[in-house]
Amino acid sequence: MTQFNGKVLINCDMGEAYGNYACGPDDDILPLIDIANVACGFHAGDPCIMAKTVAQCKIHGVKVGAHPGLPDIQGFGRREMQLTPEEHTANMVYQIGALQAFLDREQLAMHHVKPHGVLYGMMARNVDVARAVWAGVPKGMRVFGLAGTPMETAALEAGLEFWAEYYADVKYRADGSLVTGRRRDTWGMEDVRAHLRLQLERGQVTAVDTGEVVALPSVKDYPVSVCCHSDSPGCLDIIRTARGVVDEVNKAVTGSS
Amino acid sequence: MTQFNGKVLINCDMGEAYGNYACGPDDDILPLIDIANVACGFHAGDPCIMAKTVAQCKIHGVKVGAHPGLPDIQGFGRREMQLTPEEHTANMVYQIGALQAFLDREQLAMHHVKPHGVLYGMMARNVDVARAVWAGVPKGMRVFGLAGTPMETAALEAGLEFWAEYYADVKYRADGSLVTGRRRDTWGMEDVRAHLRLQLERGQVTAVDTGEVVALPSVKDYPVSVCCHSDSPGCLDIIRTARGVVDEVNKAVTGSS
Amino acid sequence: MTQFNGKVLINCDMGEAYGNYACGPDDDILPLIDIANVACGFHAGDPCIMAKTVAQCKIHGVKVGAHPGLPDIQGFGRREMQLTPEEHTANMVYQIGALQAFLDREQLAMHHVKPHGVLYGMMARNVDVARAVWAGVPKGMRVFGLAGTPMETAALEAGLEFWAEYYADVKYRADGSLVTGRRRDTWGMEDVRAHLRLQLERGQVTAVDTGEVVALPSVKDYPVSVCCHSDSPGCLDIIRTARGVVDEVNKAVTGSS
Amino acid sequence: MTQFNGKVLINCDMGEAYGNYACGPDDDILPLIDIANVACGFHAGDPCIMAKTVAQCKIHGVKVGAHPGLPDIQGFGRREMQLTPEEHTANMVYQIGALQAFLDREQLAMHHVKPHGVLYGMMARNVDVARAVWAGVPKGMRVFGLAGTPMETAALEAGLEFWAEYYADVKYRADGSLVTGRRRDTWGMEDVRAHLRLQLERGQVTAVDTGEVVALPSVKDYPVSVCCHSDSPGCLDIIRTARGVVDEVNKAVTGSS
Repeated sequence: MTQFNGKVLINCDMGEAYGNYACGPDDDILPLIDIANVACGFHAGDPCIMAKTVAQCKIHGVKVGAHPGLPDIQGFGRREMQLTPEEHTANMVYQIGALQAFLDREQLAMHHVKPHGVLYGMMARNVDVARAVWAGVPKGMRVFGLAGTPMETAALEAGLEFWAEYYADVKYRADGSLVTGRRRDTWGMEDVRAHLRLQLERGQVTAVDTGEVVALPSVKDYPVSVCCHSDSPGCLDIIRTARGVVDEVNKAVTGSS
Repeated sequence: MTQFNGKVLINCDMGEAYGNYACGPDDDILPLIDIANVACGFHAGDPCIMAKTVAQCKIHGVKVGAHPGLPDIQGFGRREMQLTPEEHTANMVYQIGALQAFLDREQLAMHHVKPHGVLYGMMARNVDVARAVWAGVPKGMRVFGLAGTPMETAALEAGLEFWAEYYADVKYRADGSLVTGRRRDTWGMEDVRAHLRLQLERGQVTAVDTGEVVALPSVKDYPVSVCCHSDSPGCLDIIRTARGVVDEVNKAVTGSS
Repeated sequence: MTQFNGKVLINCDMGEAYGNYACGPDDDILPLIDIANVACGFHAGDPCIMAKTVAQCKIHGVKVGAHPGLPDIQGFGRREMQLTPEEHTANMVYQIGALQAFLDREQLAMHHVKPHGVLYGMMARNVDVARAVWAGVPKGMRVFGLAGTPMETAALEAGLEFWAEYYADVKYRADGSLVTGRRRDTWGMEDVRAHLRLQLERGQVTAVDTGEVVALPSVKDYPVSVCCHSDSPGCLDIIRTARGVVDEVNKAVTGSS
Repeated sequence: MTQFNGKVLINCDMGEAYGNYACGPDDDILPLIDIANVACGFHAGDPCIMAKTVAQCKIHGVKVGAHPGLPDIQGFGRREMQLTPEEHTANMVYQIGALQAFLDREQLAMHHVKPHGVLYGMMARNVDVARAVWAGVPKGMRVFGLAGTPMETAALEAGLEFWAEYYADVKYRADGSLVTGRRRDTWGMEDVRAHLRLQLERGQVTAVDTGEVVALPSVKDYPVSVCCHSDSPGCLDIIRTARGVVDEVNKAVTGSS
């Protein structure tokens, strides 16, 4: 019934506050998700917030991955920047290393690396960026990305373990690209449910630009994770809805949620 | 003849460039020193510079330690900032972790941690700051500091291995405190030589405020390292002079330079 | 009945968002206040937020002043930093000039300058800081500060027009200093009312450290403005309460609110 | 003999230091140039450096213009960033206003505005960026740019006074675009002389990509200024050489240097 093997896990961006500035309702989200992508201080997050976020993830049994982004707090990592390959690689080494140190203190393992925001989009379109970014990730690490794009091919080339993502709260164009902007859209819960079911059960989406139902690139045998965002309007409702859909899909596939 | 055991090693701040901005003549300094304190991106340095600096240290057989500072590139970590203990601790975890990742890629071990600039001075005066900073350093790590100050006592409390520093290019007041500012002083080579010899052979300095020769706090049995800076005017001459003095002292003590 | 002449006006910090990060409910606050202190991009705010905030103030007929702060977004200008006098002065020139340009485009005049956060506190304690900061303000400009402190004396020395502030949502110690921290306290509305009335009608406060009612330094014949904050928990309730008190006081004094 | 009317003036980027980091030898350059483009704190410069640079320009009788850039000190404004039109406009208002305040204190007028680095290049290629940037410049202001590009057309649309630039130390491609990178090229003085003469006397350049001599877009009747950079290797020699060529050309045209 689904296009992939195993249970689906929900990942969500966490720790995207900065100094006195709040971002999403992380404390309310943590009980609802399986995996956290923790901001590493370049697009959001700071050392204190990273320490607190990792500690909270541990309490809730949520797995922690690194969520490195472009070096641009003001733009929240959502303004495209042209960096050299060396900069992309070094920025990853730096951010992943910083988060690793907080995990070491809590005796947690790094679960995965997922690039943030427009950096993710640049990798999905440009294999040179994808290669430069993945070159900064330790060999053998689990990484999240968009199947059928340079993120996938460059990850396999680099000897990384690829997980494919579906999106609860991001729309797609007919060419399979994600519709992202500087701020997130508002969603109705029925739309979230239909959007997720179509992806998980048929590997399809209704494209926003053409209105057609189109097939997404195959997620093959990769593990699949559904991404939610903590800065979408009404994010708690979206995540609860996604949790419901994912639990049903997992039950259907594995006989348990 | 000296106040301590073993060979003296020279440490120098390295990798304090930032983006297109250069700092000291690192490539010329590396052949002259034993240990590098590598900036971690908060007071100076950035991911590309860290990658390049660590690679150069490896080529020259120079040991690499972390040189974490206050989060203030504009002030070069030399403007005192009042942070919470949690911020001090998390800032250390973050910066040390980031450098560790670059070392891992070069299969180098972290040699030590030495706080930078005014943070070092704050720790030498205030045991609460010293405790908060050292709390962010992995247990058992080698750390550099000023003997006879809270840097020493808090390091021992925290289970860290303390190394005492003498200074080639920084003057002291009669109370043993270092005379630091936003920019470094100019030195004559005879003064560097006399200043270093007095520290290494007698544990004394000529205080700038009173003109008296005063005893520095005992460095006990700690290993001793002499610090030079890459941003002092004429730093290459200072470092060559320090190298000469240190080699003579090491020869006298151990029979070999 | 009051300690001063003329009507009391309410000022509030505005435009303290940053990039995608929100701060207070500015749009709801603007109809309730007389004067906005607009952040200038150093402790909070950015060029787009400044443009939008100035435009909104114009729509609501709220007077706009500059709210320059320390250069520290992460600390929200609430971490004390030791700057040189030249830095303090130049930082003011820069921030006030930047805001002036947005006012020029809206054909609004700069109403006043009020230093932000811990910079305000440093000026209230240290006349050298007060002088350095005021040295960056155009001659003759209206400035806000705490009467009886170096903010007042240095402002007069510098040929500036001084307005005295009372505080709706900040407590005082028995020595007249303000109790500020990195985040704001929660207030009951009865406490806000009593606190404001005591200041406005008697020039007194109940000191938090001793519990005694103490006299604040005289506000002399200065115009008085009551300060509220947009980042206090429940700030809208506080501001509505302050509005009520101020309107009553103004009515009693002038016969009209 | 030249393609334009009037005397040619030399402009040079100034004040591109940052905190403790030096950039070019500004003090040696100032006696050699006519016009300074002063960095405004986004790609380089900070309030103290702006204050000092403006004061030095006044001493040397050098006219001061604003040199606003992308908000990226680490990338020195040379990493392309995708900003919204609102951000481009507001960034200009902010930076120009900040510099205006330093000019006001020295009773100097703002001579012109010249966008910096990759922002300049983006404007030369993309009329939407050019319009957004010029929208942040006060009406009637003199602006510098590349003739025959959207910089020119959008400037005229916006009611600005356009001056055309030629380049002493930047090469062109056959399509008239400038060859810029993260760091500047090294030049021989004969090449500088030939490059400048060809531009000033014939409105032509030798394209680096094809080796052909090609005609640059007409500078029409615009005043022309020759740009030099303070961060080119050997910049003092380049500027002295450019000074010589420009003085000769001016003498030929006007009968006086």
